Amino acid sequence: MKVSIIMGSYSDKDIAFDVIESLKIFDIAYDVVVYSAHRTPNEVVNYVKEQEEKGTEVFISIAGKAAHLGGVIAAHTTRPVIGVPGKTSLAGGMDSLLSTVQMPTGVPVATVAVNGGKNAGILAAQILSVGDDDLKEKLSDYKLKLKSDVDEMNRKLKEDLGA
Amino acid sequence: MKVSIIMGSYSDKDIAFDVIESLKIFDIAYDVVVYSAHRTPNEVVNYVKEQEEKGTEVFISIAGKAAHLGGVIAAHTTRPVIGVPGKTSLAGGMDSLLSTVQMPTGVPVATVAVNGGKNAGILAAQILSVGDDDLKEKLSDYKLKLKSDVDEMNRKLKEDLGA
Amino acid sequence: MKVSIIMGSYSDKDIAFDVIESLKIFDIAYDVVVYSAHRTPNEVVNYVKEQEEKGTEVFISIAGKAAHLGGVIAAHTTRPVIGVPGKTSLAGGMDSLLSTVQMPTGVPVATVAVNGGKNAGILAAQILSVGDDDLKEKLSDYKLKLKSDVDEMNRKLKEDLGA
Amino acid sequence: MKVSIIMGSYSDKDIAFDVIESLKIFDIAYDVVVYSAHRTPNEVVNYVKEQEEKGTEVFISIAGKAAHLGGVIAAHTTRPVIGVPGKTSLAGGMDSLLSTVQMPTGVPVATVAVNGGKNAGILAAQILSVGDDDLKEKLSDYKLKLKSDVDEMNRKLKEDLGA
Amino acid sequence: MKVSIIMGSYSDKDIAFDVIESLKIFDIAYDVVVYSAHRTPNEVVNYVKEQEEKGTEVFISIAGKAAHLGGVIAAHTTRPVIGVPGKTSLAGGMDSLLSTVQMPTGVPVATVAVNGGKNAGILAAQILSVGDDDLKEKLSDYKLKLKSDVDEMNRKLKEDLGA
Amino acid sequence: MKVSIIMGSYSDKDIAFDVIESLKIFDIAYDVVVYSAHRTPNEVVNYVKEQEEKGTEVFISIAGKAAHLGGVIAAHTTRPVIGVPGKTSLAGGMDSLLSTVQMPTGVPVATVAVNGGKNAGILAAQILSVGDDDLKEKLSDYKLKLKSDVDEMNRKLKEDLGA
Amino acid sequence: MKVSIIMGSYSDKDIAFDVIESLKIFDIAYDVVVYSAHRTPNEVVNYVKEQEEKGTEVFISIAGKAAHLGGVIAAHTTRPVIGVPGKTSLAGGMDSLLSTVQMPTGVPVATVAVNGGKNAGILAAQILSVGDDDLKEKLSDYKLKLKSDVDEMNRKLKEDLGA
Amino acid sequence: MKVSIIMGSYSDKDIAFDVIESLKIFDIAYDVVVYSAHRTPNEVVNYVKEQEEKGTEVFISIAGKAAHLGGVIAAHTTRPVIGVPGKTSLAGGMDSLLSTVQMPTGVPVATVAVNGGKNAGILAAQILSVGDDDLKEKLSDYKLKLKSDVDEMNRKLKEDLGA
Repeated sequence: MKVSIIMGSYSDKDIAFDVIESLKIFDIAYDVVVYSAHRTPNEVVNYVKEQEEKGTEVFISIAGKAAHLGGVIAAHTTRPVIGVPGKTSLAGGMDSLLSTVQMPTGVPVATVAVNGGKNAGILAAQILSVGDDDLKEKLSDYKLKLKSDVDEMNRKLKEDLGA
Repeated sequence: MKVSIIMGSYSDKDIAFDVIESLKIFDIAYDVVVYSAHRTPNEVVNYVKEQEEKGTEVFISIAGKAAHLGGVIAAHTTRPVIGVPGKTSLAGGMDSLLSTVQMPTGVPVATVAVNGGKNAGILAAQILSVGDDDLKEKLSDYKLKLKSDVDEMNRKLKEDLGA
Repeated sequence: MKVSIIMGSYSDKDIAFDVIESLKIFDIAYDVVVYSAHRTPNEVVNYVKEQEEKGTEVFISIAGKAAHLGGVIAAHTTRPVIGVPGKTSLAGGMDSLLSTVQMPTGVPVATVAVNGGKNAGILAAQILSVGDDDLKEKLSDYKLKLKSDVDEMNRKLKEDLGA
Repeated sequence: MKVSIIMGSYSDKDIAFDVIESLKIFDIAYDVVVYSAHRTPNEVVNYVKEQEEKGTEVFISIAGKAAHLGGVIAAHTTRPVIGVPGKTSLAGGMDSLLSTVQMPTGVPVATVAVNGGKNAGILAAQILSVGDDDLKEKLSDYKLKLKSDVDEMNRKLKEDLGA
Repeated sequence: MKVSIIMGSYSDKDIAFDVIESLKIFDIAYDVVVYSAHRTPNEVVNYVKEQEEKGTEVFISIAGKAAHLGGVIAAHTTRPVIGVPGKTSLAGGMDSLLSTVQMPTGVPVATVAVNGGKNAGILAAQILSVGDDDLKEKLSDYKLKLKSDVDEMNRKLKEDLGA
Repeated sequence: MKVSIIMGSYSDKDIAFDVIESLKIFDIAYDVVVYSAHRTPNEVVNYVKEQEEKGTEVFISIAGKAAHLGGVIAAHTTRPVIGVPGKTSLAGGMDSLLSTVQMPTGVPVATVAVNGGKNAGILAAQILSVGDDDLKEKLSDYKLKLKSDVDEMNRKLKEDLGA
Repeated sequence: MKVSIIMGSYSDKDIAFDVIESLKIFDIAYDVVVYSAHRTPNEVVNYVKEQEEKGTEVFISIAGKAAHLGGVIAAHTTRPVIGVPGKTSLAGGMDSLLSTVQMPTGVPVATVAVNGGKNAGILAAQILSVGDDDLKEKLSDYKLKLKSDVDEMNRKLKEDLGA
Repeated sequence: MKVSIIMGSYSDKDIAFDVIESLKIFDIAYDVVVYSAHRTPNEVVNYVKEQEEKGTEVFISIAGKAAHLGGVIAAHTTRPVIGVPGKTSLAGGMDSLLSTVQMPTGVPVATVAVNGGKNAGILAAQILSVGDDDLKEKLSDYKLKLKSDVDEMNRKLKEDLGA
């Protein structure tokens, strides 16, 4: 699998499905599991090692509160790790965001917006497109799709305005 | 050693020395190392395992920014883990504090104030005093010392006021 | 009782029941009362003194907003005090968290996550396990339970994915 | 003494001197001590009781971080308590401010700005002016003084502008 | 009227009714109006002047967001002004709190907790009790009532616990 | 004068001089005074009325902490009011920013960045350019100047890189 | 059209309708579209250029999260740009507010409150009233309307109080 | 060039040099320029298009305050964009961080820590290592280097401790 997704808890599954929705746009193979950095630390490390051997090029972590999962993965691989901070009740996820993004020198986690599962999938596609012209073209098509979505929004707005 | 102190970087050493200053008040044996949750994840785990076997009863972590060290230790031991968030430039350490304290159910980190190295040492002594009447007495003596420090402050204040 | 739980208001009782749920896993005897640091300051102090004499080894405070309860308890005992900040509407409990954790030198409060009642109970068990091999074993069993919970989550995830 | 000032630490003395500077404008008698809510909890309570008997009408607390001092005083008196949150490195005193102001129903602390010692003195004078026409007149004079300070600022500004 | 309450908008009326509920405990006469610092600035000033002449000793402002009402009142009177910051959607009222409490030197606003209408009434009673032994006694009775409320909470807790 | 600048304190004068520096680029006549919303409320109102009669089209306020000055001006004029929040020690000016920008419906303050004096001047020029083609052209020239500043930065960067 | 409104997403349309509601009070012609700074960057620029040529004097942007829309518009025009930060779940829109207001020197965005659509419309009217006495009069009438709204609030309050 | 670095201002050059320091470890060719999203919007877009044609696989933006640069780049390319938020005086860079990371669906910016220039370089190397075994090996060597740095820290710590 090109992309391996680890969520810290089953309760994060909606965000994981957002990641998957994005990956499917680009026909990118993925694996997805629940492993907690704190409750199953060895399983996280073993999974990362296994997936790396199986060819995973990008890891995606999804976690909330003291969101260490991205950091733990990044500590055990040299592959890029994308971190999705989960929304929480503390200022709407400020804890998850800071725990994910403020990594020390040497071990980055590529952080996207709070609950930004869809963007994690897009970013994974962008990363995998390095040296892959086919995927680059799909990403260009996706950009056009973003534009046509906005065109559609303008049609709806004109209807609302009775124009 | 009863207490094992792990700091995430050599730059945290002043906080570590604060911890040690407190432990010395109560004649508590300690060990201290630098191990980063992100740069040396295996060394952290190995050290925790070794120290646990050597009789460590309390772990203390010192780390800043996305401060995962306390969480990583707590994931690998059932001993109480005290977390000291380090001061940073992001709102004075809000990142370190939230990364340390907002742990998920099952894996607590006993968090003290930002840069609260001295209190981490006191809390370790309080924890070790469970079932140890000698240490409890030392802690009572320490409370008296806190009071006499305040008495001394009042003497200085009276001097300032020319009283 | 080994653990004495004080909540600042009856409205904190759900958090208190979370603490109790954790303590029951480890068969730890507890007492629980409502005493407010601000509305019944003498009762808090008297209760702390009484429970200390009856053998309490760990205190747990639960309080929100200007959450002083943990600090008041810690001012009157040398036993470890665990503070649970309650969720509020101000940034989701930032007031409770800072009021609980930012204690001055000499008087620590071992702070857990906002609304972290369950972890307060686990941390109390970890503290009581100092010099108690039986309790240490129960804590190891609990760690295995955490892992099997995650295994169950993966089973559910696979079902969701139709795998 | 009409006003009793308690600071949590000798390091807060500059703020206390600001309070005193304001009280002197209105010839208000005061007493000032260092008593920590956490290190000398009994001394705080005893002092509050004594000063209340000696005729104190307003208490002023000065404290930083988990600033419980105002709340502890308010728990033991029915006199108005003015709280001055001290500046800290955590977001410039957000911890002190929230710990002072977010008091539960029944036990208010009249909170002024972070490091607002001078205003605590003014507010004490305003409170003492209830039913005291002489003090009310002094407060009106002080308001005129504030205006003439601004006039002076405009003179300096015109100089700077070369007007 | 001893106390004059100004709320910035009719939508703040629940907080105003909380203030009134507290004032009624102490039989304190009050007046209450809606005047916005921004939409009716002259009316605020005129009302403050009129009420001052009629004998108002304490003003209470209730306002949210850029909550200037307390500051505007304080700019036009030497009577103590109590400010109640209203809850908002921005971090739960952080905007209202900072706009109310962070007043410049010379013009304090005695700030209570976000949505702390009841405490504003209590604080007004405490201020009015300066030199009024009857009101001081009522405040002492109120403190006993706070204690008996907590006793009642403990009875309910015991029922919940099946004790 | 087309633009009238009010600063809340002489200590804000560096920000005022930044405003003036921008206005001079566009040869815009201005007046500048120190008037505090809290210490000289009547003077603020009188000045606003006078300047409005003299033809002021834009007001600029500069204030910190509970920064009410912009709101007070906006309450007394229908001219656009630009608010510059001053940097403070509370999270770097979060208090000033929220007090300035979070205005209620009906009375906007056009807020620029913390310490954004230069941009307040540019924004004033943009506002005054409504229906003034000459000023619009000057603003276009200024945009070219911004670009050439960046060109100069690139020259310096190349030097640094030894290119 | 005198005012051109760009919202970043169709989901911002309620805020856009608030803007329009305000503009209609003053009979100000407007155009409104959905264009995203990130999904349709060229369309934003083209629209800004076109509207500028058609005589737009004020642009209004509505956007949430990393709210760059106001900044992008301001980069391509010398007309004043009003930015409305949209409410989000991150501390209630702190992300949108800071992304909109903290613009660099040379390129201001006139920021109003989070979700402050109505005020954006009022501010646009104030800006357009430069040199337009008719519109100035309408703005004065609107200020009277604000006052009469508050009068009506006082009538309702008196009813509530049974007066 | 494989990596193109754009900084928003010459004042960000220290962060840019940190990025370059990391890229040099892995012998990665780069280009670096100063282009502001707000002052030179066309130049940013043109540069992005040109560099994309010349083979740039990863863009890195460095910007502070309302940090739109990463978002503007991402709007115009399908290559992965790494965003480095610059430290500011507003809560230490909270404005830059939120403006960079909170991107809308479809247009991610891979955000690293505030002032995290070195990590931006490492992350770029990780991204470029997709399908490049040589670079993967260099990254593994770098991980070993991180470990040996920590070993060196422990040697220094032992010296400090006189061990």
